[in-house]
Amino acid sequence: MQKILVANRGEIALRVMRSAREMGIKTVAVYSEADRDALHVRYADEAVFIGPAPSNQSYLVGAKIIEACKQTGAEGIHPGYGFLSENAAFARLVREAGLILIGPSPEAMEVMGNKLSAKAAALKYNIPMVPGTEEAITDIAEAKERAVEVGFPILIKAAAGGGGKGMRIVESAADFEEQMNLAVSEATSAFGDGSVFIERYVSSPRHIEIQILGDTHGNIVHLFERDCSVQRRHQKVVEEAPSSVLTPEIREAMGRCAVDVARSVNYTGAGTVEFIMDDQLNFYFLEMNTRLQVEHPVTELISGVDLVKEQINIARGHAISFKQEDLEISGHAMELRVYAEDPANNFLPDIGTLQTYVTPKGPGVRVDDGFEQGMEIPIYYDPMIAKLITYGKDRQEAIERMIRAIDEYIITGITTTLPFGKFVMQHEAFTSGNFDTHFVKKYFTPEVLNADNADEAEIAALLMERLLSAKKVAVTESVSVMESNWVRNRRGV
Amino acid sequence: MQKILVANRGEIALRVMRSAREMGIKTVAVYSEADRDALHVRYADEAVFIGPAPSNQSYLVGAKIIEACKQTGAEGIHPGYGFLSENAAFARLVREAGLILIGPSPEAMEVMGNKLSAKAAALKYNIPMVPGTEEAITDIAEAKERAVEVGFPILIKAAAGGGGKGMRIVESAADFEEQMNLAVSEATSAFGDGSVFIERYVSSPRHIEIQILGDTHGNIVHLFERDCSVQRRHQKVVEEAPSSVLTPEIREAMGRCAVDVARSVNYTGAGTVEFIMDDQLNFYFLEMNTRLQVEHPVTELISGVDLVKEQINIARGHAISFKQEDLEISGHAMELRVYAEDPANNFLPDIGTLQTYVTPKGPGVRVDDGFEQGMEIPIYYDPMIAKLITYGKDRQEAIERMIRAIDEYIITGITTTLPFGKFVMQHEAFTSGNFDTHFVKKYFTPEVLNADNADEAEIAALLMERLLSAKKVAVTESVSVMESNWVRNRRGV
Repeated sequence: MQKILVANRGEIALRVMRSAREMGIKTVAVYSEADRDALHVRYADEAVFIGPAPSNQSYLVGAKIIEACKQTGAEGIHPGYGFLSENAAFARLVREAGLILIGPSPEAMEVMGNKLSAKAAALKYNIPMVPGTEEAITDIAEAKERAVEVGFPILIKAAAGGGGKGMRIVESAADFEEQMNLAVSEATSAFGDGSVFIERYVSSPRHIEIQILGDTHGNIVHLFERDCSVQRRHQKVVEEAPSSVLTPEIREAMGRCAVDVARSVNYTGAGTVEFIMDDQLNFYFLEMNTRLQVEHPVTELISGVDLVKEQINIARGHAISFKQEDLEISGHAMELRVYAEDPANNFLPDIGTLQTYVTPKGPGVRVDDGFEQGMEIPIYYDPMIAKLITYGKDRQEAIERMIRAIDEYIITGITTTLPFGKFVMQHEAFTSGNFDTHFVKKYFTPEVLNADNADEAEIAALLMERLLSAKKVAVTESVSVMESNWVRNRRGV
Repeated sequence: MQKILVANRGEIALRVMRSAREMGIKTVAVYSEADRDALHVRYADEAVFIGPAPSNQSYLVGAKIIEACKQTGAEGIHPGYGFLSENAAFARLVREAGLILIGPSPEAMEVMGNKLSAKAAALKYNIPMVPGTEEAITDIAEAKERAVEVGFPILIKAAAGGGGKGMRIVESAADFEEQMNLAVSEATSAFGDGSVFIERYVSSPRHIEIQILGDTHGNIVHLFERDCSVQRRHQKVVEEAPSSVLTPEIREAMGRCAVDVARSVNYTGAGTVEFIMDDQLNFYFLEMNTRLQVEHPVTELISGVDLVKEQINIARGHAISFKQEDLEISGHAMELRVYAEDPANNFLPDIGTLQTYVTPKGPGVRVDDGFEQGMEIPIYYDPMIAKLITYGKDRQEAIERMIRAIDEYIITGITTTLPFGKFVMQHEAFTSGNFDTHFVKKYFTPEVLNADNADEAEIAALLMERLLSAKKVAVTESVSVMESNWVRNRRGV
């Protein structure tokens, strides 16, 4: 494989091309109308225009991607994440075209792409699942019996349900009948079907996922966990590795489970097995993502492994470049997704031009992005501007570096989640490691950012005071100018 | 220590302030007339103007630095490297002013600042020195006897000499008398003194240095070696850690020697013990630098230790945050000094404006710099623009990342050493690890950069060919544009 096409855009397209370039592999970019001037187009050795801005007319059209490969002589396709990355039909098209998809087989994608078949595959290896009923129930007495078996607190979920309707949390057996009746009647009126599932309610859940790699020689290894419990609208915003709660024993047990899940579908390439974990550190299989994750850099930093290079080499038929026992966790890594979103307005996506765009530098800071100053954030795609990743000898240093890096990051013209990221990094629940997926719901309101604005006003007052007293600070013939002006000079304040 | 003054400029001032900020310590910048708009001034919490551009009227005036501390309430001074960093008189001034210098004692600086006293201190611990005569000799018979003791090849050096005059390399005893006569007569006519020293000639020398840290509790540790053998005009341009030639046993022996050298002066803070190594891996003490080195980041990357934080904590009276046995080498780091110099013109410094300035990003790349696009490189100071540092799982990956990062780095308006860096990274002598301090002299001529230009012409021709054939590469309704244009678009080519 001497040339690969990257069927993606933005930061992940650049990320993949960087590794390819280091391996001496030529790269082909594809781009839509909206991405004519994008950095991934400039970075590639060649670039192919594939249509209008909407994804379903360009980045999601498998036939155009394959045609672009044929025209440029690209032998392999790296799909990045999103778009076609977990599309089994596309994976089949690629195979039929005699090309190599840098990812798992279409069969593995298919099994893991469906919750039921994924669960069935995982059960072959006795992977722990959230305890509960396998089939829908309507009878109250039977339901209560099952609830006692499962153990309280339990969750009653409408079998036909969605959107929280017909969903009840029951803390103890004493409350069961009342709540069950309410759930059944709610479900009946909402869906015309009163049957329910019962499962253990994970009251303080953490999202822990395990990175795995499998090759075509039957080797499967795991690269430890990522803790992605800080989410907004069920989407990750802060990720870290390692997790602050895992013990070495649980890490090993989760790693073994993840390897087994991958083995159940003869997985090849990079994948992630996601678990939910309760406050007793019990973990339960959620699903498997059959692609590179957005948050893969935190794993790269603590393991020293370039995951994209491993993906490419696995697709070439090479064995994974290391053994499980060669790996160890070194230091701590933290990632903040920098979105063009307004955290003070329910994380509503923002669009516009990056009027100022200065990325942080220095020890332990990595910025994976796809923009530079003057560029526009297109409305057609995911509003992520960058991933800000820090690395330190321990969690505290990674957090301190993240705060320092957030302070250094200058973005004007677009509202971003940077202030929200700083709020998280400074919150006691986060710094103590005592948080779950309800973090944002529990602690975040726009007012906490306003509190930050008050701080800004304070700083402004302090600045004025300093300027007024500047004459007092004379060094021989020289006069001291005292300003905290990293951001302000460029913003013109 | 809640506030420190950084008595330096450019990248190292920013580097120090970044660590201070992560520690929650306020920072004070000082700046000369030429640095009014410099990034280190913007980055600091406060900034003090200290005079005209020439260093001897600003950055080198100790009294102004101390005055700036008093005016701002800074309790400590970080001197960076260069300027006042190894000035024992300044260190005394700082002590007398009741301030803390983030560095060793003036006494340690004094001993190590003088070649003879440094050698004498090191000899207390039997540190290996280049074998040779301790006193000057004029008698040929005596000289020959000593030469045989020292072992051939030997170097005859005029005692009063300098600039290579009266210097002779003698390969064997048979040639000795003839060469000695020539050396003595040359020395006599050049300096009016025919006496000479005799020492072992290190024919294929490598420059290997050991990073050490000492604290006020008597702990001294080493953080392994850096190999800085690629030099031009006796100045380092490429540094790496670990060295490609050291065995674990020699690494440990050198580490022990370096700790002993530091112990001989009760060293506190960060320091570097430099050695020369021959092709048989014999090492000899050269000198000790009593400050942070330019190339310290490669050590930070392989050890996970933030050297500036350790310096600051040691100055606060804390113990070093780890023990020798906690340290291990992880991966490989490479640094290229990016100078405003013309490698095709004997590395003559260049000045001007950074018309385009885009730094590389992505996995394993760190850029320590002090400039941004549109800024001028002042003529008054060291012409270093940036340090480009890469990190990989092994030496090959660090080199591949360096080449990728050099290709990504866009600097226009000023001639830089980036093409020279790429030449080094691609040269077989360097990639094989089989090189010494004569690397540049042996392999580098401006023509090798011209060869690179030929390559550029080739690329241009290829580009034209591609553009002409672009119409053939149509994907459905779309047309492929194929350019290798990362650099070219911005240069307007």
